[in-house]
Amino acid sequence: MAKILDKIDAPGDIKDLSNSDLDVLAEEIRDLIVTTVSRTGGHLAPSLGAVELTLALHRVFDSPRDKIIWDVGHQSYAHKILTGRRDQFHTLRQFKGISGFPRIEENPHDIFGAGHSSTSISVAVGLAAARDFREEKHKVIAVIGDGALTGGMAFEALNHAGSLNMDLIVILNDNEMSISPNVGGMSKYLSRIITGQFYNQAKVDIEDFVNRLPRIGPKLKRLLNRMEESLKGFIVPGVLFEELGFRYFGPIDGHNMPLLVETFSNLQRIGGPVLLHVITRKGKGYVPAEEHPTHFHGTGPFDKVSGEPKKSSKDTYTDVFGRVVTRLAATDRRVVVITPAMTVGSGLVEYAQQFPDRFFDVGIAEQHATTLAGGLARGGMKPILAIYSTFLQRAYDQVFHDVCLQNQPVVFAIDRAGLVGPDGATHQGVFDISYLRVLPNLTVMAPMDEVELEMMLSHSLSINSPVAIRYPRDYVEQVTESQLHHQPLQEGKALVVRDGKDVAIWAVGPLVYRVLDALPILEKAGVRPVVVNPRYLKPVDDELICRQARKGFRIVTFEEHALAGGFGSVLLETLEQRGIADTPVLRLGIPDCFVEHGTRDQLLKLLQLDTQSIAERIIRFVNEPVSISARQG
Amino acid sequence: MAKILDKIDAPGDIKDLSNSDLDVLAEEIRDLIVTTVSRTGGHLAPSLGAVELTLALHRVFDSPRDKIIWDVGHQSYAHKILTGRRDQFHTLRQFKGISGFPRIEENPHDIFGAGHSSTSISVAVGLAAARDFREEKHKVIAVIGDGALTGGMAFEALNHAGSLNMDLIVILNDNEMSISPNVGGMSKYLSRIITGQFYNQAKVDIEDFVNRLPRIGPKLKRLLNRMEESLKGFIVPGVLFEELGFRYFGPIDGHNMPLLVETFSNLQRIGGPVLLHVITRKGKGYVPAEEHPTHFHGTGPFDKVSGEPKKSSKDTYTDVFGRVVTRLAATDRRVVVITPAMTVGSGLVEYAQQFPDRFFDVGIAEQHATTLAGGLARGGMKPILAIYSTFLQRAYDQVFHDVCLQNQPVVFAIDRAGLVGPDGATHQGVFDISYLRVLPNLTVMAPMDEVELEMMLSHSLSINSPVAIRYPRDYVEQVTESQLHHQPLQEGKALVVRDGKDVAIWAVGPLVYRVLDALPILEKAGVRPVVVNPRYLKPVDDELICRQARKGFRIVTFEEHALAGGFGSVLLETLEQRGIADTPVLRLGIPDCFVEHGTRDQLLKLLQLDTQSIAERIIRFVNEPVSISARQG
Repeated sequence: MAKILDKIDAPGDIKDLSNSDLDVLAEEIRDLIVTTVSRTGGHLAPSLGAVELTLALHRVFDSPRDKIIWDVGHQSYAHKILTGRRDQFHTLRQFKGISGFPRIEENPHDIFGAGHSSTSISVAVGLAAARDFREEKHKVIAVIGDGALTGGMAFEALNHAGSLNMDLIVILNDNEMSISPNVGGMSKYLSRIITGQFYNQAKVDIEDFVNRLPRIGPKLKRLLNRMEESLKGFIVPGVLFEELGFRYFGPIDGHNMPLLVETFSNLQRIGGPVLLHVITRKGKGYVPAEEHPTHFHGTGPFDKVSGEPKKSSKDTYTDVFGRVVTRLAATDRRVVVITPAMTVGSGLVEYAQQFPDRFFDVGIAEQHATTLAGGLARGGMKPILAIYSTFLQRAYDQVFHDVCLQNQPVVFAIDRAGLVGPDGATHQGVFDISYLRVLPNLTVMAPMDEVELEMMLSHSLSINSPVAIRYPRDYVEQVTESQLHHQPLQEGKALVVRDGKDVAIWAVGPLVYRVLDALPILEKAGVRPVVVNPRYLKPVDDELICRQARKGFRIVTFEEHALAGGFGSVLLETLEQRGIADTPVLRLGIPDCFVEHGTRDQLLKLLQLDTQSIAERIIRFVNEPVSISARQG
Repeated sequence: MAKILDKIDAPGDIKDLSNSDLDVLAEEIRDLIVTTVSRTGGHLAPSLGAVELTLALHRVFDSPRDKIIWDVGHQSYAHKILTGRRDQFHTLRQFKGISGFPRIEENPHDIFGAGHSSTSISVAVGLAAARDFREEKHKVIAVIGDGALTGGMAFEALNHAGSLNMDLIVILNDNEMSISPNVGGMSKYLSRIITGQFYNQAKVDIEDFVNRLPRIGPKLKRLLNRMEESLKGFIVPGVLFEELGFRYFGPIDGHNMPLLVETFSNLQRIGGPVLLHVITRKGKGYVPAEEHPTHFHGTGPFDKVSGEPKKSSKDTYTDVFGRVVTRLAATDRRVVVITPAMTVGSGLVEYAQQFPDRFFDVGIAEQHATTLAGGLARGGMKPILAIYSTFLQRAYDQVFHDVCLQNQPVVFAIDRAGLVGPDGATHQGVFDISYLRVLPNLTVMAPMDEVELEMMLSHSLSINSPVAIRYPRDYVEQVTESQLHHQPLQEGKALVVRDGKDVAIWAVGPLVYRVLDALPILEKAGVRPVVVNPRYLKPVDDELICRQARKGFRIVTFEEHALAGGFGSVLLETLEQRGIADTPVLRLGIPDCFVEHGTRDQLLKLLQLDTQSIAERIIRFVNEPVSISARQG
């Protein structure tokens, strides 16, 4: 049977659909989303929760003339499907396919890219101001979740926008979750609004007050009872937003399409900064996602019927981190773990259950998380901040100001360091070595496998200064004891994994194993390299570097990280500092570009960082003549 | 006459003073602050405003057992004087003297360092949590200004703390200013509280409501008039904080010492997160500072009697930036300038007067400022974000996510790049090259003088991608036309300032002139270097580098920036990428340490980056034999 969706090539095509057709369309969109994500993985639950909201927005507003800004972009799948990407939707998050997030380059309806949280209101303020400067007329709408609202920059933007008196619509898509159930005072506040407790409490307060007035109290109380309904309107639930300068509307049911359409139509006629509070259900319409919204926030492929994940039985670095940290906390009562809304993603479900008192999920608030860790350390605790490489960028100044400068023993457990794959450019963890190693007092380490991750975490608790440990979004190596001899960590010392001659390959973290994979190709070409696991990216083992250089070795560095200022540059700097000018170095890493989505293997191949490519590049390098300058020639 | 202050060696010494002695002491402290800052420069107005607050805190609480956290630290001079640093106070902000900010290393009463804004509540939450984990008993008090409260991380911390139900005191020191008069919805909200408008508006609302009830209205209205006073207590002014989970008290007069002491004593007995709203006057007690609180927020030396600044007539880069941007805005209507609360510091007073409509002071909110710029650019404007190097760290993720990744033409005008002098370690702008150049799409430039700053700003408006221009906190060079020939900018091209042989010195920004200063010493030693102004730090002029390397030149880089990943590494990377392995390079810059306060000249000397030192280091480098490895030997 022909689907309604088949006829929707642009948002204009839904303007004239009947209400019942819209309901059918919503179901068709949900089905396409669930079917696709069950194969590709993706942000299922948030997108399912926003289907009616998206339909109503595109029905009332005139995108792309009106600008709809999706915060984070987790919830933008229906938007993608409605804006001409229905037929490509099956390529979601796949190499050369459509992105899991809004992207300016992908489609004119994607007004601004996203992937990180809490940016939409600032973007919207900028677009609305630009509109007014240019004397254009259109609406600007930011759609932000209650989770994203805890990010400080969203507050900065509300604070600024509320004072500007500009025409701006903020839609608070409130599902009472960030990625996990939402936390904090704001969240409690919003749920008091939703449940009516706000009004009920106000009523109790007023009655209390009235009862304290001996003479006029009883009379007033009877009055109050009669005017209860009217009072509900007077006790504004959104006073917090009103105080910042927004007009607050809501809360309204975000799955009631006629109500949404009517409300948006009304908002369209109203000027000034307004905030509409919409209540949605995360995972709406797909039972497994409704029941396990956190699990289905971002998911890998799963069985569509049962909802069961198609999960590998192999351990990830994330799994190992979760296990190790749980064990460390059991033996050291000073261990506290902090996550900015990433309990599941950082492997902390078990930890949180075992040590609820020594666990802080602070919501999407990386800055506070980092400075909180600094304060905990100063108070004598051993805080471990579990954070993704790309999200640590949000707290860069706090890493500098409240941890490194104060020299506080905070452990940064940096997950998703390196290429993350399908989440794409916003999520690649390929800048952290550059931005971290410039900060004094900080030790930076990278484990090559689970044994080292455990050693490093354990060791980091014994150092009285800050430590960053970076590990990838990947399965751990299947290593047997005999394969590699794991010597204990030595401060600032690298591990020579394999001896050889003429060339030394320094590979960051698990890339050591990729070099070992390449050995057969290298050896066939007569190249028998020393393979080095630096372990410490800062301070680096400069003695070993110099020893190799003085022996006349060529040196190769290999990292899943930008070349600009990355680990390769650490080697170049070391050679310069030791006054060694004639050691040929080849740095393998990511050139000066953003890396889009795809599988890690596809991306490594694209970047010529796969096993075959690096082997060829190393062979070429080893066989090159050393360049001779005029000075020597 | 003996001063009371002479007997105050520790906070305990003020516990038993009479109220009138406390008043005298407050005056003595103010006099010491004004006298000292008139000589040393410093953050005068905020510290003058907090004298009674500080005295009352130390009278009631038991520091350092009770932990007092000063946000930013602008206001901590009285605290320093009361905690054993009276006699060193004259060394404020001077080399080897006491810092202008709280520093853990300096004194046990400085619980946590600061210098950047909005961190205190997060630190306090960490300390309070650590206290509870360790089952200790003491108070934790964060003192934060209304300006710092607009920084998003303060909101993140309030949001988290409000949900924890921990024993924590936040003192909101409200002087209705950040550095300049405060902006935003929060600020309006606070001033409505102070002026009673909050209550007045509520009254109007209630009367409106009552008037709309035809039958019972008049009766209720008479009732309301009678209960007006009681109603004032019922309409809680701090509802915004209450909604986040804090108990709100205030506002109270922050210069009424008995009231402060009484209120703190009461707070000491109350548990749970509380927020006390204290109203102070910035600059209190020194007429010129009361009249010009923005000017006296952070000031250079001034005449104590008249309040007139002892200002050099020379122009700074800041002055030049302000002039140029004002001219650019006059000819290009798309230019918009954004500042995060730094109108004066960034030289934008004149601009703000001439173009109030195209000027956004967003308050202390660097993250929002940056993403706002991204949105404005996307909307077709030409935003220029004026920001200090060290504060741009606060917006690192936004520079990545909302500007570079979206490839939006935002111009970052980065002031205070390099050593800033007396503000010390929190304010040195010595990391920006490393953290910025790793971001794709971004062009990074450094002007050597005012002529180039103007060229670069003007040119940056014509590029359709993001640009960062870094310039120092310094006077511009006094250059005559004939001294240097200013060729027009060429994309990615360096400027050879002086020709020579054997060695090329690449000096970032105005350091070119320091190299020219060193020429007599170099020439005496037979060294006649090529002097290069790179202009573009990214993309660098790699052709010129290679040409010099192939000619057999040695290369020196010179930057007021950390060596780790800085401009010197750009050269090393370029040589590696071009396969040139035998060019000796010497990188002059800042080693892996935090640089404390002092004059720029003192700090440069300390770091061996003064004229004499660099000349000697270059001479040594040029005369060193090239190291010979086993491979070649």
